[in-house]
Amino acid sequence: MSELRYNNKRIYYEIYGDGEPLILLNGIMMSHLSWKAFIPELSKNKKLILFDFLDQGKSDKMEGIKYGHELQVEALKALINHMNIKKADIVGISYGGEIAMQFAIKYKELVGKLILFNTASYTTPWLRDIGRGWINAAKTYDPETFYNVSIPYIYSPLFYTENNEWMEKRRKILYNVFNRDFLNSMIRLTKSSEGYEIRSMLREIKAETLIVGAEYDYITPLIEQEYINENIKGSKFLVIKNCGHASMYEKPNEFILLVNGFLNIEKSLLIV
Amino acid sequence: MSELRYNNKRIYYEIYGDGEPLILLNGIMMSHLSWKAFIPELSKNKKLILFDFLDQGKSDKMEGIKYGHELQVEALKALINHMNIKKADIVGISYGGEIAMQFAIKYKELVGKLILFNTASYTTPWLRDIGRGWINAAKTYDPETFYNVSIPYIYSPLFYTENNEWMEKRRKILYNVFNRDFLNSMIRLTKSSEGYEIRSMLREIKAETLIVGAEYDYITPLIEQEYINENIKGSKFLVIKNCGHASMYEKPNEFILLVNGFLNIEKSLLIV
Amino acid sequence: MSELRYNNKRIYYEIYGDGEPLILLNGIMMSHLSWKAFIPELSKNKKLILFDFLDQGKSDKMEGIKYGHELQVEALKALINHMNIKKADIVGISYGGEIAMQFAIKYKELVGKLILFNTASYTTPWLRDIGRGWINAAKTYDPETFYNVSIPYIYSPLFYTENNEWMEKRRKILYNVFNRDFLNSMIRLTKSSEGYEIRSMLREIKAETLIVGAEYDYITPLIEQEYINENIKGSKFLVIKNCGHASMYEKPNEFILLVNGFLNIEKSLLIV
Amino acid sequence: MSELRYNNKRIYYEIYGDGEPLILLNGIMMSHLSWKAFIPELSKNKKLILFDFLDQGKSDKMEGIKYGHELQVEALKALINHMNIKKADIVGISYGGEIAMQFAIKYKELVGKLILFNTASYTTPWLRDIGRGWINAAKTYDPETFYNVSIPYIYSPLFYTENNEWMEKRRKILYNVFNRDFLNSMIRLTKSSEGYEIRSMLREIKAETLIVGAEYDYITPLIEQEYINENIKGSKFLVIKNCGHASMYEKPNEFILLVNGFLNIEKSLLIV
Repeated sequence: MSELRYNNKRIYYEIYGDGEPLILLNGIMMSHLSWKAFIPELSKNKKLILFDFLDQGKSDKMEGIKYGHELQVEALKALINHMNIKKADIVGISYGGEIAMQFAIKYKELVGKLILFNTASYTTPWLRDIGRGWINAAKTYDPETFYNVSIPYIYSPLFYTENNEWMEKRRKILYNVFNRDFLNSMIRLTKSSEGYEIRSMLREIKAETLIVGAEYDYITPLIEQEYINENIKGSKFLVIKNCGHASMYEKPNEFILLVNGFLNIEKSLLIV
Repeated sequence: MSELRYNNKRIYYEIYGDGEPLILLNGIMMSHLSWKAFIPELSKNKKLILFDFLDQGKSDKMEGIKYGHELQVEALKALINHMNIKKADIVGISYGGEIAMQFAIKYKELVGKLILFNTASYTTPWLRDIGRGWINAAKTYDPETFYNVSIPYIYSPLFYTENNEWMEKRRKILYNVFNRDFLNSMIRLTKSSEGYEIRSMLREIKAETLIVGAEYDYITPLIEQEYINENIKGSKFLVIKNCGHASMYEKPNEFILLVNGFLNIEKSLLIV
Repeated sequence: MSELRYNNKRIYYEIYGDGEPLILLNGIMMSHLSWKAFIPELSKNKKLILFDFLDQGKSDKMEGIKYGHELQVEALKALINHMNIKKADIVGISYGGEIAMQFAIKYKELVGKLILFNTASYTTPWLRDIGRGWINAAKTYDPETFYNVSIPYIYSPLFYTENNEWMEKRRKILYNVFNRDFLNSMIRLTKSSEGYEIRSMLREIKAETLIVGAEYDYITPLIEQEYINENIKGSKFLVIKNCGHASMYEKPNEFILLVNGFLNIEKSLLIV
Repeated sequence: MSELRYNNKRIYYEIYGDGEPLILLNGIMMSHLSWKAFIPELSKNKKLILFDFLDQGKSDKMEGIKYGHELQVEALKALINHMNIKKADIVGISYGGEIAMQFAIKYKELVGKLILFNTASYTTPWLRDIGRGWINAAKTYDPETFYNVSIPYIYSPLFYTENNEWMEKRRKILYNVFNRDFLNSMIRLTKSSEGYEIRSMLREIKAETLIVGAEYDYITPLIEQEYINENIKGSKFLVIKNCGHASMYEKPNEFILLVNGFLNIEKSLLIV
């Protein structure tokens, strides 16, 4: 249980294990709590750092303040400064991947390896309007409405169908999470992505990068990761089969094996 | 401008051209108006019949009445009786495809060829909850909310992004369409699909069938049409590239060529 | 049974039906005979023209003469002149599609609609070496060797497996076809494709174009047709599911419906 | 440099590093030499065992002897006995994956984790005839013929094209490898796969299994790994993008990260 202050706001983080620093960046609806089951495997030989973006989890709310991704990039910078980290490996999923790429462009020297799950380099009008639908739904402050217009699309049709009992349990949990405060944060977080567009800057990413997409990701479809892969030199690109946008929930072991496997490589082979 | 009565309800239909009857069955948000641009090509050598399901377009509203797909199947039957049709080719898209399949199972002798665009044989829990999200959004009676939580997913990300100006014009048109009456109908139509499940009955379809899916259909993904294709004997299966669920809007010429091309075949080749 | 002379060589063609001219261009191993079963459907309202490229079917062999695609393009031009055709719709599959595109670039005014099945705009080193393997195999003059190193890749794994009895009958027929003369022609035809590269010229194609790929085409994979589609303005792009390179054999009805459906469109809709 | 005798035949193997045993099983054209560049990363915390199947590398030739996969399964068993191994993790690619699965069915207690790259559970008539084409080509004893009819299909079209210089160097190396002895071994190894069919036995595999396919694998297409994945309980399934059948050559780092990442998992998460 640790925190720092950035811009008069409290930023919450947790540390597990010992070794080279590895920072996990949350998707938009997530918090440090989302990673609980992943801690043992991801902190085995690493100093694992969980971190709540502003408006997430135990970090401060940004009530009344309009912000963009830059704020989160700088919050991450503040954390790295605060912890006196020279270089960290960074894993980001969705929203977290977007912040991770922007951080890797702005603070090249602070980034070791970069792992991007289910993310995009541009909030297209399509994705913007999906976000606006989430905002519309959040403004009803009705958990059921927010759940039904967002959660199903985040999972693959097959997973959602085959694990419907688990989904129904999750629905109950999330109804409690989706309170007024959370939904107001969601609105601000979603708005912070509206102008996001770094397609022309991807070439500036110099970190060794692993890109992971999911076969049935209907929020950031595979074409988004294909674009990123084409524009980051030497990046690796793998796809999780039978999986939707919430890959860490649908396929936690695949998530872990990809992260640990990529971080574990000491020297990239160059056969060709 | 014609109509008939079924179960004390008025059913609206329109007829164009001359020849063998060809009935188009609408998707859930559509009506006979949606086909306007298609009429010249689809009625060239056919008696083209546009038909509003109950709760669609100019057919009667079903206020206060709970119903399932059977009602629409029987409404279609009433139309065919009324017009004294012996056998009709049927094209259905999405909701219309679901009614078409059920009709083809129940009234085999009345169906010539069957063409199914972007449809499914089962309302999975995933699709059911997407539908419930639409219902939640409809109940706000706010056109913007309903638009943002439904329309983006219906188009492919690329189409929506590349034709954003057109989408914005369409948004304005649809805000006028999405009035209280329409949204109440949408709620009932969506509910009528909740219990839909005909997977085990697909084998009873004996009509010559063409199945069409779209690469980026995020409402009835390609796996749904693959399932249908595996279970209807001798069916043909084609995919529209770079296209989402609303294939007739995104790719109208491909839609027309597939319909006319398939109907035009006199005798199926059997080379193997 | 008709022929013309071009460059002192006899070019064989056949005509069926009456109407606007529609020319079919063969894949590399095909001849006018390959289309026999297709004639009734494709000649219904068309003057269907089957045509053997030089070194194919009943057209003259090119023994001792090295040539490229230009020769076939000019042979086609000679046919069109000879028949006094002002404008023809052209369907090409594989090798025939390559000639069709080059013809459409060079003789824009002579081409109505263009339909391209399973074709590419560039003989990559990969495809070149596959071709060289065919040439190596042909030079053994052993039908079994030539069959086994070429035919399986031309069909989709599923079709080949599910229709293995038919394939075995076909094998027997082809062993008779694969005589020394045929194999020598195959060697020259394959060599004529080696330098083929028109990627930068695709934008010059002005004909209304339908591009068709097959899900399991392992000779001209879908990425080839995606490239063509991105570079011909307004082209339509459809995919035949569960099908390999020899789409006309595996899915003859889909082939016919796509051709007739596309040719049948009088005026392209432009909804967006 | 170590060897054992099995059935009067010498079996060659090499050991690197220290830790739990990890056995790599070669694809059909490979040998222990193929893994040279992989040794540092794969032997970091493992006792890495490279092993030549009979008719591969430095293991004995099987001249004059007809055999099936059982022989290789038993050769592997002999190696494990010889080394007094209680349980080993096994990685198999293509042919090696086929042997690995059969070993995991027959000797459940000896297998820890199982990793299957680019493999199949059945030699379909399609794959059988591709193999027969390789045999036909091998019998010419001409390295160029054998190269051209086999190697291009083993790589993805894009890799082969973009790395054509490297492929040409590889061609020269392989021309030396493809001598009479090697080709005779290839013929026997290929024949040993002809009757292979374990589809109905996959459910007996109890090892924790990772299945890896490649987007452009034209020898054992993704549908083969999908089938395996559906039939091994709890298996994980990942896909290497922009990659063909020879995934270890095209994407060596992805290969390594998948192997090490999967082996590194201590306890599978079960979130659902």
